[in-house]
Amino acid sequence: MKKLVAEFFGTMWLVLGGCGSAVLAAAFPELGIGFAGVALAFGLTVLTMVYAIGHISGCHLNPAVSVGLWIGGRFDVKELIPYIVAQVLGGIAGAAVLYIIATGKSGAEIGTFASNGYGAYSPGGYGMVAALVCEVVLTFFFLIVILGATHSKAPKYLAGVAIGLCLTLIHLISIPVTNTSVNPARSTSQAIFTGNGELIGQLWLFWVAPIIGAILAGIVYKYLSPEEE
Amino acid sequence: MKKLVAEFFGTMWLVLGGCGSAVLAAAFPELGIGFAGVALAFGLTVLTMVYAIGHISGCHLNPAVSVGLWIGGRFDVKELIPYIVAQVLGGIAGAAVLYIIATGKSGAEIGTFASNGYGAYSPGGYGMVAALVCEVVLTFFFLIVILGATHSKAPKYLAGVAIGLCLTLIHLISIPVTNTSVNPARSTSQAIFTGNGELIGQLWLFWVAPIIGAILAGIVYKYLSPEEE
Amino acid sequence: MKKLVAEFFGTMWLVLGGCGSAVLAAAFPELGIGFAGVALAFGLTVLTMVYAIGHISGCHLNPAVSVGLWIGGRFDVKELIPYIVAQVLGGIAGAAVLYIIATGKSGAEIGTFASNGYGAYSPGGYGMVAALVCEVVLTFFFLIVILGATHSKAPKYLAGVAIGLCLTLIHLISIPVTNTSVNPARSTSQAIFTGNGELIGQLWLFWVAPIIGAILAGIVYKYLSPEEE
Amino acid sequence: MKKLVAEFFGTMWLVLGGCGSAVLAAAFPELGIGFAGVALAFGLTVLTMVYAIGHISGCHLNPAVSVGLWIGGRFDVKELIPYIVAQVLGGIAGAAVLYIIATGKSGAEIGTFASNGYGAYSPGGYGMVAALVCEVVLTFFFLIVILGATHSKAPKYLAGVAIGLCLTLIHLISIPVTNTSVNPARSTSQAIFTGNGELIGQLWLFWVAPIIGAILAGIVYKYLSPEEE
Repeated sequence: MKKLVAEFFGTMWLVLGGCGSAVLAAAFPELGIGFAGVALAFGLTVLTMVYAIGHISGCHLNPAVSVGLWIGGRFDVKELIPYIVAQVLGGIAGAAVLYIIATGKSGAEIGTFASNGYGAYSPGGYGMVAALVCEVVLTFFFLIVILGATHSKAPKYLAGVAIGLCLTLIHLISIPVTNTSVNPARSTSQAIFTGNGELIGQLWLFWVAPIIGAILAGIVYKYLSPEEE
Repeated sequence: MKKLVAEFFGTMWLVLGGCGSAVLAAAFPELGIGFAGVALAFGLTVLTMVYAIGHISGCHLNPAVSVGLWIGGRFDVKELIPYIVAQVLGGIAGAAVLYIIATGKSGAEIGTFASNGYGAYSPGGYGMVAALVCEVVLTFFFLIVILGATHSKAPKYLAGVAIGLCLTLIHLISIPVTNTSVNPARSTSQAIFTGNGELIGQLWLFWVAPIIGAILAGIVYKYLSPEEE
Repeated sequence: MKKLVAEFFGTMWLVLGGCGSAVLAAAFPELGIGFAGVALAFGLTVLTMVYAIGHISGCHLNPAVSVGLWIGGRFDVKELIPYIVAQVLGGIAGAAVLYIIATGKSGAEIGTFASNGYGAYSPGGYGMVAALVCEVVLTFFFLIVILGATHSKAPKYLAGVAIGLCLTLIHLISIPVTNTSVNPARSTSQAIFTGNGELIGQLWLFWVAPIIGAILAGIVYKYLSPEEE
Repeated sequence: MKKLVAEFFGTMWLVLGGCGSAVLAAAFPELGIGFAGVALAFGLTVLTMVYAIGHISGCHLNPAVSVGLWIGGRFDVKELIPYIVAQVLGGIAGAAVLYIIATGKSGAEIGTFASNGYGAYSPGGYGMVAALVCEVVLTFFFLIVILGATHSKAPKYLAGVAIGLCLTLIHLISIPVTNTSVNPARSTSQAIFTGNGELIGQLWLFWVAPIIGAILAGIVYKYLSPEEE
């Protein structure tokens, strides 16, 4: 149960921090943090939580990560569904806090919040195929880094730095394409607050693509992996 | 006594570095560092001091952190008031040095300095409720990261990186809302130099909200915490 | 063989992440990540891969790095050609994925992609001599850092951080000069996708200069190096 | 002798990387790295060199650092002058390479290069007193971090990260004031290439202020320092 509470708070932090920086600070006139600041924020939510709760729950914060760790032989399938539920609920909690803050000024509207999307909802106008390829491939590499950096032969103290900054890197590449998901819980948390049927209708891609990428990474890393120490 | 001197210099550094980057460099024409640079600067004041004085005083640099560590069972209540006094005095010393530098050019005025505020004094015009929620929740997560990253089962060498960059993350999210406090000593140091009664009148929020957030985190982390090794 | 697969995926990640951030996100209107974001992205591709596959292949991801490690006495010459082939193929695979994503919006053209160049193809208009000096010297220091940070007397857990962020630093300096190569596989992967004969005709410099710099570093570091522990 | 060669190359890297990013990339149209990018570059020159040559020479790269370590009881005074000579020569070598690259385009002029200055030569027009206070205080904290992070009770693997990012922080604060020195070798290397008598006439401040700051830090840290393990 402690594990699930930890995943709940961790994913809440991921959404509040990552999406919060996007909604509140990215486009602030003159001094805004831009996509690079948002990329840093997303990565730091994970980096900070790995050191805070990694020793409690493993700090997945992401259904695709849980799936990838299961396929890679690092996570018990019995825990998969409870973890995913905790992550989705935590994401929604983070979005709720962000909603309260973001609407706490006169005339504020959340618009598309920090939703992920393709086509008309892609920040740069990228279509569905580009979005799908992008999310599959980036989640694939995210899981390769997670599986590799937490291997017993890797310098374990640094796993949190590598994994967190990998999420920063992923955002540096792909915010223009899909607003960057690689995390179904994060995508879900935003879409439902917009009340926008089209955005909710695009959510399937941000569940399917990251999970496909994660499964592929689990399979490839099993081949690459040296024997555990 | 050495502990208090260390907290004094550490908090002086936090204010000089964090608020200094905001006042001197954030809005420099064309080449200014913006909110993202200020966020990085605040985080690096803490990161650098954790490695410099963490083994002397624990490197709190923040009354809310001292309170949260006390509630979390990591800090002796007998030291609480002396630590807070040292932090406030250090913050004022940092603000004084910054004042000397910032006014060392012709026509310089400090305006609102790097004060925290809400309503008319929020950079983005956010109201009191948004500011309160923001400061409570962000300090809550700051303390969760501090308590988690310094737990005996966490990779201790990296605690300073995680904690420092958590403060960077917090600023990436919330500078537009309150100019980001999560630290009553930092807020106090700025307000008193402005001589602005309204800003001083808003100081209560930047003592109350961070301390509430810290207390909540101390309670939650006690529940989450695995047994110490 | 696992080593070569690891080098393939690692170099694919370097090109997809580094060149991808340049092509997709650097110049996004208002919110783009600029040269600094691209510099961070390139560095993080290496940082993340060092922790993910460093214990499998050593994580060279770069023909010049493999040559420098060979000259420095850290890498068996028998593996040199297979490593370079895997790196070039991985780079091309990364460029292919990037091509699919980048062209996945209406009206997209890749132009010069993220090619390296001098003269008319230098972002800042720098000539061949400046480009040559720049690439030789920066690769020299890159290899000094790699050889030094992986020495048995250096704190080995941090080698990935130092090496990755060294590549970030190199890009912070030299994107305006050559778009920054220091990596023949990266340069090759971009030029061939442009189908631009002039860019392909400049590729020689981005093979010759990095390899000269790497050889010089191998020689200098052998002199500097303390005895291995 | 190896120590001096290491200091030579290390300081060459500091000047080439830090001043190079300022001269070549800071103000590039639209995509330039700004002061924040330059701040990051300076810090990364030190971070990378600490891991590369820290185990050879201690990686001072700065006459003020050598003085501070001597006062703090960590460095033999017999080595002080040779270290400073190696650092100044290395800085000049870095400036020479930068000069070759920076002038390698048609119509290039180096102007004030990346010189430090006050009054008319301060980027933000700050006067001599502000510059003096700024350089003394920032070098003071730089040495506090260096002395603290390399103490036997600090987590030693992370010293390079803390020290390098401390230099980044110092630049985030003070580029607008003096263009940031805290390093007499760095200042000297730039001024002499400009051939500008006024800039050379201001060099005294960038020797005196950092060394005063370093001496004060050595004294204060001796008081603060816990017993060595």
